[in-house]
Amino acid sequence: VTVVTAYKQLAAEGFVVLRPGAGTFVADLPLLPTPRDLSARALSPWAQRALALSVANGKPRHVQIDFGFGRTFPQHFPYDTWRKLLARYLSTDDVMLARYGSPAGFQPLRVALAAHLRRVRGVNCAPEQVIIVSGVQQAIDIIARLLIRPGDEVLVETPGYMEAYNLLRVYGAVLHGLPVDDEGFPVERIPPESAARLAFVTPANQFPHGGTLTLERRLWLLAWARRADAYILEDDYDGELRYDGHSATALQGIDDAGRVIYLGTFSKVLFPALRLAYVVLPTTLIPPFLATKRLIDRGSPTLTQAAIGDFMAEGYFDRHLHQLRETYGRRRALLATGLQQVLGERVHFSAVAAGLHIMVQLPTNADEAQLIQRAAEQFSLGLYPAAPYHLQPGAPPAILLGFSGVREEDIAPGVAQLAQLLTEG
Amino acid sequence: VTVVTAYKQLAAEGFVVLRPGAGTFVADLPLLPTPRDLSARALSPWAQRALALSVANGKPRHVQIDFGFGRTFPQHFPYDTWRKLLARYLSTDDVMLARYGSPAGFQPLRVALAAHLRRVRGVNCAPEQVIIVSGVQQAIDIIARLLIRPGDEVLVETPGYMEAYNLLRVYGAVLHGLPVDDEGFPVERIPPESAARLAFVTPANQFPHGGTLTLERRLWLLAWARRADAYILEDDYDGELRYDGHSATALQGIDDAGRVIYLGTFSKVLFPALRLAYVVLPTTLIPPFLATKRLIDRGSPTLTQAAIGDFMAEGYFDRHLHQLRETYGRRRALLATGLQQVLGERVHFSAVAAGLHIMVQLPTNADEAQLIQRAAEQFSLGLYPAAPYHLQPGAPPAILLGFSGVREEDIAPGVAQLAQLLTEG
Repeated sequence: VTVVTAYKQLAAEGFVVLRPGAGTFVADLPLLPTPRDLSARALSPWAQRALALSVANGKPRHVQIDFGFGRTFPQHFPYDTWRKLLARYLSTDDVMLARYGSPAGFQPLRVALAAHLRRVRGVNCAPEQVIIVSGVQQAIDIIARLLIRPGDEVLVETPGYMEAYNLLRVYGAVLHGLPVDDEGFPVERIPPESAARLAFVTPANQFPHGGTLTLERRLWLLAWARRADAYILEDDYDGELRYDGHSATALQGIDDAGRVIYLGTFSKVLFPALRLAYVVLPTTLIPPFLATKRLIDRGSPTLTQAAIGDFMAEGYFDRHLHQLRETYGRRRALLATGLQQVLGERVHFSAVAAGLHIMVQLPTNADEAQLIQRAAEQFSLGLYPAAPYHLQPGAPPAILLGFSGVREEDIAPGVAQLAQLLTEG
Repeated sequence: VTVVTAYKQLAAEGFVVLRPGAGTFVADLPLLPTPRDLSARALSPWAQRALALSVANGKPRHVQIDFGFGRTFPQHFPYDTWRKLLARYLSTDDVMLARYGSPAGFQPLRVALAAHLRRVRGVNCAPEQVIIVSGVQQAIDIIARLLIRPGDEVLVETPGYMEAYNLLRVYGAVLHGLPVDDEGFPVERIPPESAARLAFVTPANQFPHGGTLTLERRLWLLAWARRADAYILEDDYDGELRYDGHSATALQGIDDAGRVIYLGTFSKVLFPALRLAYVVLPTTLIPPFLATKRLIDRGSPTLTQAAIGDFMAEGYFDRHLHQLRETYGRRRALLATGLQQVLGERVHFSAVAAGLHIMVQLPTNADEAQLIQRAAEQFSLGLYPAAPYHLQPGAPPAILLGFSGVREEDIAPGVAQLAQLLTEG
């Protein structure tokens, strides 16, 4: 009760923060910006924008049934294998650990990733195009430095991956959001006069709405990028987690003009705390990307890269993905079926079986924030709002229900509680 | 011979690159910038400066006796302990690995570091001021974003840590270099009219010249920063490696006005490939620094941070530093004695016994580049030029002799070869 009360108070004061892939958090109050302590000339305009747009981490809420999203289940990870692979490189005979690695990444991992991405995601790349980064945010940070000048327009999805948007904004980008539908980014609504030099999209499984970009839209988007001399940032954050056997390949794979920058991460399929992601670059962007990376970061830890390289090359990664697809796919099916059976026409969600959560459109008269608050109070049920992912306020009410971190036996009771709340509301 | 020939040819073409802490490298040619492939409007001014100033990694030269600098000896690392500490956190019962950590760093490591820095370096800090970063370059990258506007003046040492300087330059900083002497940064030569908002210094052991900043200069520098409303970036890159028992404490420890930003790294005392460094911030800079770090990087890998935290808290780090000081101190003594006995008055170097290399001032008529080339050709001896660390061309001839990576029995023969080259030259 104390936690919920504190949460409500913080929510009322505007200190509730949300991170995609990590659920809802209460902001860490002592770390909130205090720019008044600094002399007037102390901080750059960049820093001032960062203070305004950065969202602090916080402590997760404790609830009984939690539809938090983006959570992985460490229990499914083959720890014994992982320990064995790490130990291989922890010998006094191998001086690799002692050396600076390449800022582009550990070469065997780049080779393994290129092969994996070709096979599993249809990405068209050589290992030289694959650069290891400390996370998708680092990749976006470097891309923004390379391509964004203050005032530049960037096309984005709404709702969308706000953490990327905030970073682009700090660089002075002016975001132009197009509202997505069940088939993703509505490319046909890009204004002909748009001067955008970059579009940020999630074609495989639109975040957070869900849905896959159609082939027609993909071709249109690529043609636009060629015509506009623009780049497309394809965030394939959970492209490996598709449960219906109809894997949509990456947009990058059908780009024949070097306009697509492809982003992927190990955070969703292995561990966020590994801090490893990757970017596949058009060849023309490799030199400026590496020049920047060399200046700011001499590369990720070699040990982890080496172990993941072996994990992939020796088939463990495929087996692990197969198990995740089974486990998460079963949970998603339970949740989707439950929602359909219990709530039927009252809710709507994308039919594409992918990712780690379902975004549920509520009846138009529902009050999103109030529903979430009542869920916490009445049932200690963790539901998560869609509003923070919209560029504009006033979006139709919706909630995010993560299924990867919830026990199978909790899904039906959670859906029943949601139904009761909607009926009472 | 093939390697040396290739090296000479590359040197002639200007493709020899140097990285402090990693020795001399031949640039990786296929990765050199090719901005001509990009459309005119494609790259931002930031990217264009990065391309001009970034220095590519390359392959180390293979020589018989190598006075490469900044190299650590992995043989001295207690691998068994390290493996044991890592294994502690690799269990299925611990879900820490699966979670995003704090962008500020793993709390127990911050606590251990604060205690260590207080005790060993006299740093005056609470754990909240200690932020874990992926390397000193990341810390400088964030500091530059916070404090530098294009055209801002920054005071720096020359010769100095060019990799930091290049990064500051990419942000548009105008560097004002003051030539160092055996007592470090000549603060009394800061022009009264200087509008600098930042000074970058290496007080404990000036890089690469050697020498410790005197107390008088320290107090002067702190007074200047207060008066000028400026910050001091103190790079304590090898502050723990002092061999004469006279440890100079950190400048940060006598700063009572919150003007010093302290940088330290595990690269020199553990492994570069760990990719872990830390910054101790004045409290006013914590919120903007963390706001920026949250946007660009969700923190370093938890596993490594946890293991290093235990390594420090359980006394292994102290024992390891003790062993490094013995081993490297013995090598430095051998090298310094050899240089004095064999070359006497013909060379000069700082008497302060610290760090991982000695910068040797050559007779004024010596030709630095030619000497290094002849050393490689005649003896396959690895010597390293000082010129790349000077802001201006035409500095007095000098070479860098690393001692941490050279075998004790190779030191006297290497010095004898150097003496012969100087006599013949």
